[in-house]
Amino acid sequence: MRALRLPGWKSEPELVEVDEPTPGPGQVVVKIGGAGACHSDLHLMHDFEAGAVPWNPPFTLGHENAGWVHALGDGVTGLTVGQPVAVYGPWGCGTCTRCRVGVDPYCENVAEAPVPGGGGGLGLDGGMAEYLLVPQARQVVPLPDGLDPVLAAPLTDAGLTPYHAIRRSWAKLGPTSTAVVIGVGGLGHVGVQILKATTAARVIAVDTREEALRLGEECGADLTMLSGADTAQEIRQATGGRGADVILDFVGADPTLALGAAAARTVGDLTIVGIGGGTLPVGFFSVPYEVSIQTTYWGSRPELIEVLELGARGLVKPKATTFSLDEAVDAYRKMADGTLEGRAVVVP
Amino acid sequence: MRALRLPGWKSEPELVEVDEPTPGPGQVVVKIGGAGACHSDLHLMHDFEAGAVPWNPPFTLGHENAGWVHALGDGVTGLTVGQPVAVYGPWGCGTCTRCRVGVDPYCENVAEAPVPGGGGGLGLDGGMAEYLLVPQARQVVPLPDGLDPVLAAPLTDAGLTPYHAIRRSWAKLGPTSTAVVIGVGGLGHVGVQILKATTAARVIAVDTREEALRLGEECGADLTMLSGADTAQEIRQATGGRGADVILDFVGADPTLALGAAAARTVGDLTIVGIGGGTLPVGFFSVPYEVSIQTTYWGSRPELIEVLELGARGLVKPKATTFSLDEAVDAYRKMADGTLEGRAVVVP
Amino acid sequence: MRALRLPGWKSEPELVEVDEPTPGPGQVVVKIGGAGACHSDLHLMHDFEAGAVPWNPPFTLGHENAGWVHALGDGVTGLTVGQPVAVYGPWGCGTCTRCRVGVDPYCENVAEAPVPGGGGGLGLDGGMAEYLLVPQARQVVPLPDGLDPVLAAPLTDAGLTPYHAIRRSWAKLGPTSTAVVIGVGGLGHVGVQILKATTAARVIAVDTREEALRLGEECGADLTMLSGADTAQEIRQATGGRGADVILDFVGADPTLALGAAAARTVGDLTIVGIGGGTLPVGFFSVPYEVSIQTTYWGSRPELIEVLELGARGLVKPKATTFSLDEAVDAYRKMADGTLEGRAVVVP
Amino acid sequence: MRALRLPGWKSEPELVEVDEPTPGPGQVVVKIGGAGACHSDLHLMHDFEAGAVPWNPPFTLGHENAGWVHALGDGVTGLTVGQPVAVYGPWGCGTCTRCRVGVDPYCENVAEAPVPGGGGGLGLDGGMAEYLLVPQARQVVPLPDGLDPVLAAPLTDAGLTPYHAIRRSWAKLGPTSTAVVIGVGGLGHVGVQILKATTAARVIAVDTREEALRLGEECGADLTMLSGADTAQEIRQATGGRGADVILDFVGADPTLALGAAAARTVGDLTIVGIGGGTLPVGFFSVPYEVSIQTTYWGSRPELIEVLELGARGLVKPKATTFSLDEAVDAYRKMADGTLEGRAVVVP
Repeated sequence: MRALRLPGWKSEPELVEVDEPTPGPGQVVVKIGGAGACHSDLHLMHDFEAGAVPWNPPFTLGHENAGWVHALGDGVTGLTVGQPVAVYGPWGCGTCTRCRVGVDPYCENVAEAPVPGGGGGLGLDGGMAEYLLVPQARQVVPLPDGLDPVLAAPLTDAGLTPYHAIRRSWAKLGPTSTAVVIGVGGLGHVGVQILKATTAARVIAVDTREEALRLGEECGADLTMLSGADTAQEIRQATGGRGADVILDFVGADPTLALGAAAARTVGDLTIVGIGGGTLPVGFFSVPYEVSIQTTYWGSRPELIEVLELGARGLVKPKATTFSLDEAVDAYRKMADGTLEGRAVVVP
Repeated sequence: MRALRLPGWKSEPELVEVDEPTPGPGQVVVKIGGAGACHSDLHLMHDFEAGAVPWNPPFTLGHENAGWVHALGDGVTGLTVGQPVAVYGPWGCGTCTRCRVGVDPYCENVAEAPVPGGGGGLGLDGGMAEYLLVPQARQVVPLPDGLDPVLAAPLTDAGLTPYHAIRRSWAKLGPTSTAVVIGVGGLGHVGVQILKATTAARVIAVDTREEALRLGEECGADLTMLSGADTAQEIRQATGGRGADVILDFVGADPTLALGAAAARTVGDLTIVGIGGGTLPVGFFSVPYEVSIQTTYWGSRPELIEVLELGARGLVKPKATTFSLDEAVDAYRKMADGTLEGRAVVVP
Repeated sequence: MRALRLPGWKSEPELVEVDEPTPGPGQVVVKIGGAGACHSDLHLMHDFEAGAVPWNPPFTLGHENAGWVHALGDGVTGLTVGQPVAVYGPWGCGTCTRCRVGVDPYCENVAEAPVPGGGGGLGLDGGMAEYLLVPQARQVVPLPDGLDPVLAAPLTDAGLTPYHAIRRSWAKLGPTSTAVVIGVGGLGHVGVQILKATTAARVIAVDTREEALRLGEECGADLTMLSGADTAQEIRQATGGRGADVILDFVGADPTLALGAAAARTVGDLTIVGIGGGTLPVGFFSVPYEVSIQTTYWGSRPELIEVLELGARGLVKPKATTFSLDEAVDAYRKMADGTLEGRAVVVP
Repeated sequence: MRALRLPGWKSEPELVEVDEPTPGPGQVVVKIGGAGACHSDLHLMHDFEAGAVPWNPPFTLGHENAGWVHALGDGVTGLTVGQPVAVYGPWGCGTCTRCRVGVDPYCENVAEAPVPGGGGGLGLDGGMAEYLLVPQARQVVPLPDGLDPVLAAPLTDAGLTPYHAIRRSWAKLGPTSTAVVIGVGGLGHVGVQILKATTAARVIAVDTREEALRLGEECGADLTMLSGADTAQEIRQATGGRGADVILDFVGADPTLALGAAAARTVGDLTIVGIGGGTLPVGFFSVPYEVSIQTTYWGSRPELIEVLELGARGLVKPKATTFSLDEAVDAYRKMADGTLEGRAVVVP
């Protein structure tokens, strides 16, 4: 079969012929219906280097995957060949207390997870190919009725990541609450949709680009703000002086983190989703009292089921453009150039 | 001033002239902008009798009230004359641990609450008059911008009661959950609106009347069902066999309670809001495992603030018809006849 | 190997010779170190009959099991031969959303679970034998350091069942709360220990037998009450008139359920753990406002890990007497006669 | 009456004669039975200066107060003269949504709170006098039976502050969890007691001083560690490599914050209670995934009721030495010298 593989660190991916995978005991092979391309793939191509992580290329790219069950290994139950499925992307050890409840991103047995915090497409073979070997059957999630694998694929990361970040803050997101989404890009615009679909909070979308604010509005934001020196002050004004209950920073750079800290309400949440390399100095008087600051990384398997349901019901819909496997290299080029709108989904 | 008073048990209300109230220390007088009429008022007129409760008529009716601050007693802060406000209706002792956090319906010091679980309009003088004396300033809640007291009044009970019942179940109301509203009447139709505005759950509305199902649909129900012998089975079919995660029974009669028990998912909630006089026999195998069954009564002051915000933002809007104080007796007659659509709000 | 098997419904178990099990893909064979005998085994022997449930004898008894890993099937990871383990007893389908997070008692795919809500010892072969075949590796839970399989075995049911019932109510069990344990028997006495070890609530133990109250005291109960006509009133007096925040009924008969309803505080929990065949009529005014009434059945895999840790740290210790496999029939006889103190654990 | 007053910034307190207070509407005068001395009083004496805060001396010191109701203003209900009470110390506006539920430390209407986040003893007259004027009756909390005001006084801050910090993390403090207390001083030793009394978590106490570790042990710590370069590593070893679920930093200096970040488990809590002036640089990879970092400040009125109950039941007992009003200046001197063991409580 054909597969888009990264031949080595600091290199471009290549479309090559590889053997079709066969499932061992407890494993599943999925025929790919859609494989999303993600900015983190560009990091794999350009920023990683030998020795930085305990694994190495070559491997097939694509960590946002959906399709149909193709073959089942010995002992797999609850799935049938031909069934449409999404692939839960973070592949942990499968046996620690975190993995046993489907919280693989925080697997505590990393010695047993070949690519800790990652999996197929991030170090093991991913889904930019005709078939994908999924090493543990539990990582295969049946699609709800009516959800196309092409739409499901980006939901497994660009949907699941903001979903987890938002869901953990639900208790702080009632009708009098305000949520701020900083950065209305690939994940942020889905974040706005999820906030509107699952809570009664007012949503403020903040970005440096006018077109991103328009996208935020389309996704349902109640208010948009072009970010600038006064943004924190404007958020306070828009919230009766109190500040925002939940701030989701999909950028994660120094200025966005500082904005988050300045705009948060006491006892609020400031959640860092974007890996923008920023640092926030946290001390007793630098952040409002009892604002909880945390990163989040990807999401859980039960959450994936929920976000797929939102997709099936049309409540969450990532912007996406499809490409053939032949066009995949081109899709990454557009993504690097910034000329790609929405998510790129490769359909083999 | 004029007031609609209940002269005695087993009698009809009369519009009479009474003295204007003046506030004592810590008290507030509210000029009434809207006073909702409620089915429980009919019970006061027709079903109560001397000795059944520790208080007696005469008193002014009207326990759903909003208007403007008219006069402040000594020591009251945080309110200004002329400010639009709603009145939090359940008037507890004010000093027990429940009342101190605004959970007056479950006041634990009923000896100190003259009308336990109630207050103005239910035993003390209520709001079907030009002015209302509110005995504790904390029971006065400022209206959010843009919310008309005529709309706010019914939100204090017909809004707050379903809001509390739903909010306590939020953790069970995610995108893959199903909520069932049994009885799409005065409270039930607001319940559907609240579920849609605050959660991502699918909502099934059940009633015996076609027009109630149409109202449920208008309010956003995803599915409606005319109740019958197969309703529990239909709910199971609509939920992949699992049953409903949360069932809100706004009727509370024997058959609706039995329907709730039969249609609930394990670990779900079956909440009895309607005072229909029904009884559900609960045993180990008569209800699915770990379904929590409880009544709820009215709601808390913090919840009232939230439901008013939903009203101000147009997300919750009880159906209502306005009447003058002169027409109030007529409004109750229509309510008793069943010819009143939506809530009646008396505007003095 | 030798196994204590139930040859048919309405019969006594027999010690017979059977083949040693071998593990298929994803399965594990456990060498038994301890197998608890439970009252529900007596029901299996005496009360079940053909057609009542979708499975039939013969099968080996024993659903409270611990020991050491003996053999691993293909594809099993995270376990090593010789490792001390407990067996998580409720064996669900393994693939529904409930089973995927280790909540097998509420498996929603009962067509795929041969003995719904049960498993080994309840319809499939259990642990009263030298070896036990565990059909899904995830049902094997490593023991924490220092916990003897003989102690671990009863914790998997007599520990896990009260633990789940208590843990779900933790949010209502603070320093000003009162928990009532009705029935200080095999599960109830462990319930008292768990309440004291995991919460700051005051614990009242209620029973009809003086020696049970003494056991409750030994286990840490702050107060004990011989149950009688005034018990609800005494509980109210002991709680400043408020009633008990959480009531755990380990009996589940009509009078204990009625006592629970009469003694509960508004917004409390009344949890039915004991399968005593009772029924509580629940209506708007028959139970204090917003008391949640529910059954619970067994517990989850993550909870088993926690209760084993309590055992390893000496905070929870079920009373137990050991018997050899030859004496097992005798142990059941003593249990039926009421002459057995604590749990019987069979050590092959 | 006599009162220990701070005459100006940068000065020592003086024992002077002042008028006895009289209560206005809604106010209460408390006869002081005990007034705790706190390190933050030393800051008031030595570190504050004109213009830094919106209030100025002179005022009476003492923000940890308990005693007996002496006089009630107009409109106060639910209290009787002579009743033993504690004073809830953080005096917010009383009318914002936070104050209405007794969360005054996070009052959102600071323009209406004369000493935002503080109150008597911190800018208004405090309790180091014979009588204390409490401006809002709700700030007076009845003592549970058997709790001496001398013990109650330090519980209002040295008890309430760690209690709030711990209680908010209860959901993360089960039997398999580990809590780390950094700094076993005036608040930290009470923190250890509270953890042991209210949760099943294992507790590790960390300090730089051997005698503090001994105090931690006396208070129930399961493990103590003298802090050094390897402490984070030792905590990881003691937790099977996972790290601590909840870390309470009662110091708040750079090295303790860094220790907390290094020793925390993913999805844990790192709570900064001590005002040690430290800063933690927080970024995507500098702290384990989804560790929530927050400060906490004092606690809520409902929490004060709970911590007083723990005191009454003997489960929490701050170390304390009593002083007369004449000796109060001396008590502060000992505190400044470091020769005071435990909390100083002034008994007028």
